[in-house]
Amino acid sequence: MNDFNLKGYVGFWAERVEKFFESYIVSADIHASGLVKSMNYSLGAGGKRMRPAVIFSSFGIFDNYFDKVTPYAAAVEILHTYSLIHDDLPAMDNDDFRRGKPTNHKVFGEATAILAGDALLTKAFEIMLNKEINPDIEAPLMAEAAFKLAVAAGDKGMVGGQFADMQAEKTDPEVETVDYIHMHKTASLIAYCAELGAVLGYGEEIDKANMKSYGRKIGLAFQVVDDVLDVTSTAEELGKSIGKDAAEGKATYTALYGVERSMRIASELTAEAIAIVEPYGKAARPCIEIAKYVLERKN
Amino acid sequence: MNDFNLKGYVGFWAERVEKFFESYIVSADIHASGLVKSMNYSLGAGGKRMRPAVIFSSFGIFDNYFDKVTPYAAAVEILHTYSLIHDDLPAMDNDDFRRGKPTNHKVFGEATAILAGDALLTKAFEIMLNKEINPDIEAPLMAEAAFKLAVAAGDKGMVGGQFADMQAEKTDPEVETVDYIHMHKTASLIAYCAELGAVLGYGEEIDKANMKSYGRKIGLAFQVVDDVLDVTSTAEELGKSIGKDAAEGKATYTALYGVERSMRIASELTAEAIAIVEPYGKAARPCIEIAKYVLERKN
Repeated sequence: MNDFNLKGYVGFWAERVEKFFESYIVSADIHASGLVKSMNYSLGAGGKRMRPAVIFSSFGIFDNYFDKVTPYAAAVEILHTYSLIHDDLPAMDNDDFRRGKPTNHKVFGEATAILAGDALLTKAFEIMLNKEINPDIEAPLMAEAAFKLAVAAGDKGMVGGQFADMQAEKTDPEVETVDYIHMHKTASLIAYCAELGAVLGYGEEIDKANMKSYGRKIGLAFQVVDDVLDVTSTAEELGKSIGKDAAEGKATYTALYGVERSMRIASELTAEAIAIVEPYGKAARPCIEIAKYVLERKN
Repeated sequence: MNDFNLKGYVGFWAERVEKFFESYIVSADIHASGLVKSMNYSLGAGGKRMRPAVIFSSFGIFDNYFDKVTPYAAAVEILHTYSLIHDDLPAMDNDDFRRGKPTNHKVFGEATAILAGDALLTKAFEIMLNKEINPDIEAPLMAEAAFKLAVAAGDKGMVGGQFADMQAEKTDPEVETVDYIHMHKTASLIAYCAELGAVLGYGEEIDKANMKSYGRKIGLAFQVVDDVLDVTSTAEELGKSIGKDAAEGKATYTALYGVERSMRIASELTAEAIAIVEPYGKAARPCIEIAKYVLERKN
């Protein structure tokens, strides 16, 4: 079974999401055009577009009317992009490069970067709840999708994880703290992506729970591999600074367990994730391939 | 007709909204408790609670089941609070005091202030879309309320206005630019508040348009009076720095028109706002009193 072209699969959905950005994220007024330019700069800066791929692959288990998913996949990628812009700010991780390009605040200044992030976060909800561009999504589904996004992205999810990450720089990392950070900073939104596929595909509650669990496991594995790549990769391969987490005393898996044991943990997590979706049969193939990629990726 | 106690009216709803904050904005995990503390610091810092009052007063024209409005009024005040935290940041307006208390970043640091703002913005949507705490709001109404909030608060609304405001510091203010800034930075969200009352009260489309127009006019008048108070008031009366806008070359009405003409414009706007709601009869009394207050307030 080596006939699955994951790069092509992910690229296919990435293109749809990027087309949506181009058509939807446009300036309504000359006074805000600089803001929209800054938003589009970060949206267009590439990246793996992994979250949209997780949404589409999960949805494919339950339905095949993929077109109606595009605005939702775009909304989640937009929310992810806001979090990168704010994380890179001088007061936060103070990063000059992201995906091989200067970070938003390096190009547009701090004030604009803060506002671009705020506007993108708001935009994610606007898109999900926009009846005109989502004629085939019923209101209860819209509300469920947007509510769960808010929970996954807020103080009980992603932002809570980022906060704990900033705090942890000041202390020696403990297992429990590192688990909290990874689970919330990264895995929370990826778990949401996998669950969203089941929500939009009218899955049962048990399916939503299954997909969320699958997403949490690959999300956690993704972050563990991130920690490993930070110490084993080169800046060129990664397109961002390396060794930075370790230098700053960040709470990472490699700091706790070293590279080998970290990779073993990631391997177990992806195996568990695959076991969750395998019972769904052939339609789960993309979910399985994404789980494998998370473990084997080199950047 | 001097028997209306506006202070009591506004305080009555403020208390409900503040009770809601206390019960809902709580930490789910010790790792994020510092974040939630920072969120609650700014939520509890007082303020006029004008936006909730506008929502309740507008709703009162259409319905009297006020209890179901509380989470929505709280959500809008939460969103307003996020915008104050981010506006006060060193990279933005760099304010040390707000409502007579040190600003969020002065107490908790910049990183936490950015994240607290992000979490509050996200929380506003979470609250509006939470089925459990809004058992009497149907999904289409939820989705409409949250969608319109996103439009009013994002790049086409409040954030767009704040961006234009930052940009305008670098140039001489023009009438058209100042109008754009005030309309978007301040009036957009207050117009939304007035419209929201009609949305939640099952008003007709014409009612929603009327209330939005009323809200836009009092919102604009509110900002014009703000500009006037910045040059005529004392720091003690306002509870924040004064003369700062003028010193920084901010785009204000007073810079364009002077104090007297600015007050005449504000007076016309409130008269127009009152004329819009008067046909709704006795139920519009609170809306009328709020419009008068906007013009006459001293802080």
